[in-house]
Amino acid sequence: MSGSIYGKHFSIATWGESHGKGIGVVVDGCPAGLSLCEEDIQKFLDRRKPGQSKFTTQRSESDSVQILSGVFEGKTTGTPISMIVFNETQRSQDYSEIANYYRPGHADLTYDLKYGFRDYRGGGRSSGRETIGRVAAGAIAIKILNQLGIDLFAYTKSIGPVSCNEQNFNREEISNNKLYMPDAEAAQKASDYLAKCMEDRNSSGGIVECIVKHMPAGVGEPAFEKLSANLAKAIFSIGAVKGFEIGDGFDVAKATGLTNNDNYGFVDGNIEKLTNHSGGILGGISDGSDIILRAAFKPTPSIANTQQTVNKQGETININIKGRHDPIIVPRAVVVVEAMTALCILDMLFESMTSKMEDIEKFFQ
Amino acid sequence: MSGSIYGKHFSIATWGESHGKGIGVVVDGCPAGLSLCEEDIQKFLDRRKPGQSKFTTQRSESDSVQILSGVFEGKTTGTPISMIVFNETQRSQDYSEIANYYRPGHADLTYDLKYGFRDYRGGGRSSGRETIGRVAAGAIAIKILNQLGIDLFAYTKSIGPVSCNEQNFNREEISNNKLYMPDAEAAQKASDYLAKCMEDRNSSGGIVECIVKHMPAGVGEPAFEKLSANLAKAIFSIGAVKGFEIGDGFDVAKATGLTNNDNYGFVDGNIEKLTNHSGGILGGISDGSDIILRAAFKPTPSIANTQQTVNKQGETININIKGRHDPIIVPRAVVVVEAMTALCILDMLFESMTSKMEDIEKFFQ
Amino acid sequence: MSGSIYGKHFSIATWGESHGKGIGVVVDGCPAGLSLCEEDIQKFLDRRKPGQSKFTTQRSESDSVQILSGVFEGKTTGTPISMIVFNETQRSQDYSEIANYYRPGHADLTYDLKYGFRDYRGGGRSSGRETIGRVAAGAIAIKILNQLGIDLFAYTKSIGPVSCNEQNFNREEISNNKLYMPDAEAAQKASDYLAKCMEDRNSSGGIVECIVKHMPAGVGEPAFEKLSANLAKAIFSIGAVKGFEIGDGFDVAKATGLTNNDNYGFVDGNIEKLTNHSGGILGGISDGSDIILRAAFKPTPSIANTQQTVNKQGETININIKGRHDPIIVPRAVVVVEAMTALCILDMLFESMTSKMEDIEKFFQ
Amino acid sequence: MSGSIYGKHFSIATWGESHGKGIGVVVDGCPAGLSLCEEDIQKFLDRRKPGQSKFTTQRSESDSVQILSGVFEGKTTGTPISMIVFNETQRSQDYSEIANYYRPGHADLTYDLKYGFRDYRGGGRSSGRETIGRVAAGAIAIKILNQLGIDLFAYTKSIGPVSCNEQNFNREEISNNKLYMPDAEAAQKASDYLAKCMEDRNSSGGIVECIVKHMPAGVGEPAFEKLSANLAKAIFSIGAVKGFEIGDGFDVAKATGLTNNDNYGFVDGNIEKLTNHSGGILGGISDGSDIILRAAFKPTPSIANTQQTVNKQGETININIKGRHDPIIVPRAVVVVEAMTALCILDMLFESMTSKMEDIEKFFQ
Repeated sequence: MSGSIYGKHFSIATWGESHGKGIGVVVDGCPAGLSLCEEDIQKFLDRRKPGQSKFTTQRSESDSVQILSGVFEGKTTGTPISMIVFNETQRSQDYSEIANYYRPGHADLTYDLKYGFRDYRGGGRSSGRETIGRVAAGAIAIKILNQLGIDLFAYTKSIGPVSCNEQNFNREEISNNKLYMPDAEAAQKASDYLAKCMEDRNSSGGIVECIVKHMPAGVGEPAFEKLSANLAKAIFSIGAVKGFEIGDGFDVAKATGLTNNDNYGFVDGNIEKLTNHSGGILGGISDGSDIILRAAFKPTPSIANTQQTVNKQGETININIKGRHDPIIVPRAVVVVEAMTALCILDMLFESMTSKMEDIEKFFQ
Repeated sequence: MSGSIYGKHFSIATWGESHGKGIGVVVDGCPAGLSLCEEDIQKFLDRRKPGQSKFTTQRSESDSVQILSGVFEGKTTGTPISMIVFNETQRSQDYSEIANYYRPGHADLTYDLKYGFRDYRGGGRSSGRETIGRVAAGAIAIKILNQLGIDLFAYTKSIGPVSCNEQNFNREEISNNKLYMPDAEAAQKASDYLAKCMEDRNSSGGIVECIVKHMPAGVGEPAFEKLSANLAKAIFSIGAVKGFEIGDGFDVAKATGLTNNDNYGFVDGNIEKLTNHSGGILGGISDGSDIILRAAFKPTPSIANTQQTVNKQGETININIKGRHDPIIVPRAVVVVEAMTALCILDMLFESMTSKMEDIEKFFQ
Repeated sequence: MSGSIYGKHFSIATWGESHGKGIGVVVDGCPAGLSLCEEDIQKFLDRRKPGQSKFTTQRSESDSVQILSGVFEGKTTGTPISMIVFNETQRSQDYSEIANYYRPGHADLTYDLKYGFRDYRGGGRSSGRETIGRVAAGAIAIKILNQLGIDLFAYTKSIGPVSCNEQNFNREEISNNKLYMPDAEAAQKASDYLAKCMEDRNSSGGIVECIVKHMPAGVGEPAFEKLSANLAKAIFSIGAVKGFEIGDGFDVAKATGLTNNDNYGFVDGNIEKLTNHSGGILGGISDGSDIILRAAFKPTPSIANTQQTVNKQGETININIKGRHDPIIVPRAVVVVEAMTALCILDMLFESMTSKMEDIEKFFQ
Repeated sequence: MSGSIYGKHFSIATWGESHGKGIGVVVDGCPAGLSLCEEDIQKFLDRRKPGQSKFTTQRSESDSVQILSGVFEGKTTGTPISMIVFNETQRSQDYSEIANYYRPGHADLTYDLKYGFRDYRGGGRSSGRETIGRVAAGAIAIKILNQLGIDLFAYTKSIGPVSCNEQNFNREEISNNKLYMPDAEAAQKASDYLAKCMEDRNSSGGIVECIVKHMPAGVGEPAFEKLSANLAKAIFSIGAVKGFEIGDGFDVAKATGLTNNDNYGFVDGNIEKLTNHSGGILGGISDGSDIILRAAFKPTPSIANTQQTVNKQGETININIKGRHDPIIVPRAVVVVEAMTALCILDMLFESMTSKMEDIEKFFQ
């Protein structure tokens, strides 16, 4: 595989380039009997499509999904579900210039070094549009998880220097503002900060947090297939992610055992952790409390400000990247983090079904 | 798989529990013709074995490795290499007490929830001794990487509040102090801090950093099999890791495009990044500069201080964990981080061999 | 995965049902820099499409392929190649009757037992149309193999009681007759036999043979990933295959060591087997001589003759399957056997690239 | 992987050479809570060990298995089960001669071509002793299958020209004769035939048949992961197998639809096939009737008769292979076929657990 297939049980194969004919995904391993229609997918795609706010690219795409297979009479059949979004704006002429040099912070040079050449139109396969396939497949995974009682949502935790205040956390607020922040006040400040970035022909990084509620305990495999390890890979596979943490994350490095360990007690007769420093995972296995994870996204590399690079003629040149680019990746990445988290959790959930002889004997009775 | 197999090309299967008969690993996919003897492995195992300093468990183990297969007349044959370390100290009687309750911060509860019961002797499979198999296999991976000109090393970046100072970085110093810090001054301060932790019957977290030098460009696959994503999984599969980052890591969240992008220029006629905020990976593919990664380790959960937990009789109890445990995981984890980094890099290196038709045609000429 | 993904290095994900919107495949892992256009694919699809002779279904499909991604300026980019064939004839009304009962010899019952219901239109996913994705992907694999000097072709070895005579073997003849037999005389006899089958409202089985010439030695992995084992799986994954053999195949059961062993000698200074009972594979590894494999295909299960089955009302009924179905699967399966052989061989070829340290060191020099 | 890892859910990694320190296997993915002791494994190993009859090698090995991990207080813990059999007879001096030439019918040449050199002692990894790991792991798989109500057994179907007569089939007889034939009369004839082979310093091929009773319907995945395809690979991964078939196998090539289709009817109110030409698999999915498969084994390549080969000095030579070798592989392969069938069936059984939403919702309730 060249890397566009994900998942052992609920497997997806994504394809497509920014300025090719379209973007799509094949989902192989979706259980039969799930109600599914295009609207189930579309509502997630709409959250990542361009043009939702002043902080997004001007590219005009409806990102309308079509289901081509695997669904019959409104239900999944157990066979592969192929979904496609045709690209509507493919103005490759815009990209003649960048074909000739390497944009700093982009994958231009690494693609050339790896493959000998590249589809330079809008970043080709390394474009953010690649995530359409992830979100479409993730929408199905989320639907299944919801049906199993698992609730999962992500949001913007911080943008540049502006962080949400935990005291102000309001889940409803997330979809109220264009930045997907659960804290209206922070959203306003972040909005101002981004406006300033745009004025400066610059861009900003930020952090996405994702929470999984009502997660069954016992999911995740020891050693190499820890739930945490698979989440790390899933999230780190999103372009622009440079850091990942679970629970207290990097703060544990300065903590002590006494402050970091979660003590146990009884809550309503059930054994429960009294705190959740672990972020819902102990020894790589879900412990039944909320899973909490965070990803750090780098600033959009395409900026209009002057940067130095080299071209194919062997010259050092100064460039100013044209076109209006998102000054931040984070808000549109929120739904991608949800998708990848769901794809990972669902896959590990399926994996966990053979942990115990008792469960297997009951299943095949 | 239940999670003890790692790697697509250079695959390893680890096995063994803290207080079982031994710990081992089978390496499947090691190329034929590599010179290999037990000493090549032992020198890495010696770096993680107990008893190297006052900051380690009192358990007495020589951790002597035996190669049981796959090597003939001093060279690997291309068939599986089975390696074993017999456990010498298996005093299971010490563990009768902890069988009955759940130690905070450990995997006791999650194993019980997942499997219905657990091997409670010394943590069973969730013990740090599980890493012996990783280090033994990693030693072979490192030997291969070195032979290909790739240099790789890890060290302790911080312990609790004490961080190494970049100005004081001295690679030779790493093996000079018991904490594997490249900064002698920081090592002294950290040593004092750990002594205090032990006095307080407490433990400390810390950060390990790993650097890969002379990494070929073009390694890593787009989308889900990014080099960064696979490194994230490899490192996060080590018990106690709660955070992972590459290059500037979480700092990118506060950075701007202008400060975070690495500009290009020519150095000795070659295209090179003038800075390395990316940590050697762009678009998930190695860019030819040093790979830099960091992992945050939580404090050792076994502490002598009083903690609250529950037992199998359904009582809330206070416990003080007995025995002398490492007050910090980090120094002994340094070689484990090296091993996992090497296993990941080697696997992705092999994966990258089919990127270009040109290379393949040359190979099969 | 639910089974529609094949290949570890050159991976394909197929999708689509007989009467859905289309059939397609995503190829993940195709090396960059291969010249590729739709005509390269179409010529293979044309060999399996309906309507080539009187022995095929009346369904009218042009089976025109479109490449949607992964090719830029006439060359593969190394990223996923998505190909699609839209279904043109989707007269689902024809299938209302078979929705209600289980056709003998078909997968109707097993799909219902596995998934709870099925897409009954033309067999849904279990239709022979599913092989379109295999052939499209196989066309690329064959192009790569050819470029590496490997030559591969299949043909009809026997139809019912009519077998090709080895003395009459003529490679050019294969594409001269509608039955893809390398023996014109046998083709004529088989044609008569099939005409009789149709008259009898019956169908026939047959055997396909495939030969791989100029196969490099050393391909195939010991133990579970033998080249022979992977070929067995690849070919047995084609619907209707009930037997598979390599070299002398089932005849070895009656042979002795003395007659079955291939002695060695020197031919033009090279070590060569003097016979090829092994069919080009020894110990699961290619030995440099021609690979010879055979697959037995069962008769088309859809026959107009009277058969007994049961319906969903719990009644035993007699049925006569309507419509004109191919009286034999074999001729249209020839190109599918080629495709699966090529997909398998290419994947194992890539796998073999890391067998020797010497080769790896040379590669990364 | 280099090929010594098998299975997606119940995964095994085998290792070891004929004349190395030992042979072993790591089972990763065995569910927790299965009662398991060494005797469960040993009884299967005893069926393949040498010295059971006059038709086996003189090598003296007790093949005593030790369980090193994964079992605690008599039950599997869900973590890897490592098993080892130490080699007792390692007289490598016997093999100095064969190091220098290529034995016809063996993997000597292909190993040298693939790896550059080989462990020539007794065939190294390509020895039949490699199957010890398969049988040990298979014993666990069989125990699980039995616990789920699935019954599975193999036997010798034919030896050279001597076939069992179906009318004489007697399951108890299988373990009554040294050739594992279910027909005492055929066993006697086969015994005479083998005695003659030995006298002639020659060897014989034969066929093993395996039957799986009480197989649940719905197991096997469409397209590439058909149950039949996976069985084909599993069985073809056994050294010396040159042919594989399911149900009527190669006979289908001469059959017609009318004779080959299995009609449906009701038996005790259940839908059942009235015949079993399909061998229990339709469309790659188990149909609930007995699975019937057959494998053709080639004659033992090591024969004392004169054969021509070449040596490393570039000479054509005549050889007579020394030592007493099994004149037939089949009887000792019977338990290996059982093991591989069980490993495959169990893995596919686990895979099938996520076919239906309904089952998954029930599981996670």
